[in-house]
Amino acid sequence: MLERITALRGSFSAWQCDALLVDHPIDLFYLTGLRMSAGRLFITRGAAQLFVDGRYFEIAKSKVPSSVEVARLEEDSQKRFLAQAGIRKLAFDSATMSYDRYEKCNLSFGEGERVLVAIPSPLKNFRAIKTEEELVKMRKSAALTKEGLRHLCTILTPGVKEKDLAWEFEKFCRERGAEKMAFEPIIAFGSNTSFPHHRASDRPLLAGDPVMIDVGCVLNDYASDVTRTLWSAKVPPEFFRLQKIVVRAQKAALSICLPGTSFGDLDAAAREVMREEGVEELFAHSLGHGIGLETHEFPRISLRAEERDTRLKEGMVITIEPGLYAPGICGARHEDTVIVWEKGPENLYEDLTFINPQGKYDK
Amino acid sequence: MLERITALRGSFSAWQCDALLVDHPIDLFYLTGLRMSAGRLFITRGAAQLFVDGRYFEIAKSKVPSSVEVARLEEDSQKRFLAQAGIRKLAFDSATMSYDRYEKCNLSFGEGERVLVAIPSPLKNFRAIKTEEELVKMRKSAALTKEGLRHLCTILTPGVKEKDLAWEFEKFCRERGAEKMAFEPIIAFGSNTSFPHHRASDRPLLAGDPVMIDVGCVLNDYASDVTRTLWSAKVPPEFFRLQKIVVRAQKAALSICLPGTSFGDLDAAAREVMREEGVEELFAHSLGHGIGLETHEFPRISLRAEERDTRLKEGMVITIEPGLYAPGICGARHEDTVIVWEKGPENLYEDLTFINPQGKYDK
Repeated sequence: MLERITALRGSFSAWQCDALLVDHPIDLFYLTGLRMSAGRLFITRGAAQLFVDGRYFEIAKSKVPSSVEVARLEEDSQKRFLAQAGIRKLAFDSATMSYDRYEKCNLSFGEGERVLVAIPSPLKNFRAIKTEEELVKMRKSAALTKEGLRHLCTILTPGVKEKDLAWEFEKFCRERGAEKMAFEPIIAFGSNTSFPHHRASDRPLLAGDPVMIDVGCVLNDYASDVTRTLWSAKVPPEFFRLQKIVVRAQKAALSICLPGTSFGDLDAAAREVMREEGVEELFAHSLGHGIGLETHEFPRISLRAEERDTRLKEGMVITIEPGLYAPGICGARHEDTVIVWEKGPENLYEDLTFINPQGKYDK
Repeated sequence: MLERITALRGSFSAWQCDALLVDHPIDLFYLTGLRMSAGRLFITRGAAQLFVDGRYFEIAKSKVPSSVEVARLEEDSQKRFLAQAGIRKLAFDSATMSYDRYEKCNLSFGEGERVLVAIPSPLKNFRAIKTEEELVKMRKSAALTKEGLRHLCTILTPGVKEKDLAWEFEKFCRERGAEKMAFEPIIAFGSNTSFPHHRASDRPLLAGDPVMIDVGCVLNDYASDVTRTLWSAKVPPEFFRLQKIVVRAQKAALSICLPGTSFGDLDAAAREVMREEGVEELFAHSLGHGIGLETHEFPRISLRAEERDTRLKEGMVITIEPGLYAPGICGARHEDTVIVWEKGPENLYEDLTFINPQGKYDK
């Protein structure tokens, strides 16, 4: 935790600030190890001071590392702290702080010669690079999700409902230690696969339905995320066409998934395959996203994202999930989560290539 | 849905705007019936135009009421829409829109003579008053939570872990139709009850432990929320003292829970009882909160809240949950959810007065 706070201070000169206000709950957890729905951590060059309300005061005093001072969340004590530390440029997270809260902070803290400095997601570059300890947890989270997905295949028989599968996956993971789902399981049968973010419904599985399963759990605080599209005997021919293209598109992106490649180039590689096949306009979302303490975190991997020119680094964990959706007919998506290494990506779902509804895995 | 959009237009003159941008996912659901993680609904005096990205375009076209036009989320088409509608004052939700997003909206839409108008939670007063259709759902959600809480009492025996109870409650509700938990179940044994927002842990129940259970589910989109503090034979004497005070404090608040009473006065009534007993400083949170599509929504019921002078109205649904916490020893909280009526509050947990660990209910 202390190293993380020290590392943040290393960005103060780039941000042109002499202190950082952290108030996003996940960032607070990342820096203090404590789950709080609200709280304010001020990091200066010399100190780290956490302000929490009555709900968290006792637990913060007993659990937060000793390098972080804990005080009650009162406006006056925050002002006093900033004044005593001589802070003149206070950076804040402009991507998550609301407009109203900014206005209030400015009123409280932006007095005299002190100014607020907008930094979008100041922790994003730090959180994107996982430590070995974090990677151990991410591999375990992925392993449980993989087990859960395999379990679903054993109960995938005509008549089962989308909602049944969603709940079955959740129960499987929760009873094996998962804190929660990384996101609401996306289970889609038949033409429902043409909605990228379908909500599991009462629709039963019919023979000939393609099946899209996009699931993930949170285990030891870390999220996992994988998508497989499966089929029984008589799926629409259009489905096979799309399915083959997304798998090829994913391979193209994986082949250049190395330190130094820009996020935009990853998306471009997948899109190139789709363009050749004349289906690029059926690709309705980003190629992928960073994953860790949050299911969707920096970076967004897309030619259209602001961070498209930023480059992969060792230790980043990202999803690569090309998807194609023929409106009203069917869709296919193929998603893996990988760790970026110099030697090539470590695919957390490598041995989960294809699945058929009989619960067997075909290469 | 259409009436809701019409009702919002009635506030345009008070807000000094000629259009409202709605982009909070819950508000979008409230107005369109569609769950989206992102989207923009522009409401003008004459039209309602929804912009969504590729993930939601097909489903929005097929499911959103015909009074709402659907288009793809592109900056140019939004600008064009605002220009054609002649919008000069565009209100936005300043409580949830981030500082960065505000800056971007201002750059995109704040051109020429058009200005953005900050309105914190523009839908809050509308969402706070529930329709009969909503109340039917809220009563059902509360009934399921009550059943789940009673179920927990049947398995509350020494040795059971906090986490076991949390998961048991979730399974019970989910298998009976709940979409999810309204919040992570708070199950605390022994001295853990002194943390108002304790996270269920592996701690086993020991004889003499007080037990705090704060749970709720989401059923048919509506949240429920209740807290009971229970005890076995030999709880610390301090616990009984606190427990009696929170029950009396809650009664004091309930006795004035009528249309016309201000939110601040509700809190004051409960605090008065605590002050008489010399324990007010052990009350570490608000007295309660509005509840509906979100577990915590407008109003926050506290002497310290901005809305303290706003008054109760018929059809509001709020929690009343005084709690007292003796650090390191124990805590007690007693929470009900009530509907505000002229004839007196309708308590959704009226028949759940006290519970003891043997699963019997004592008056």
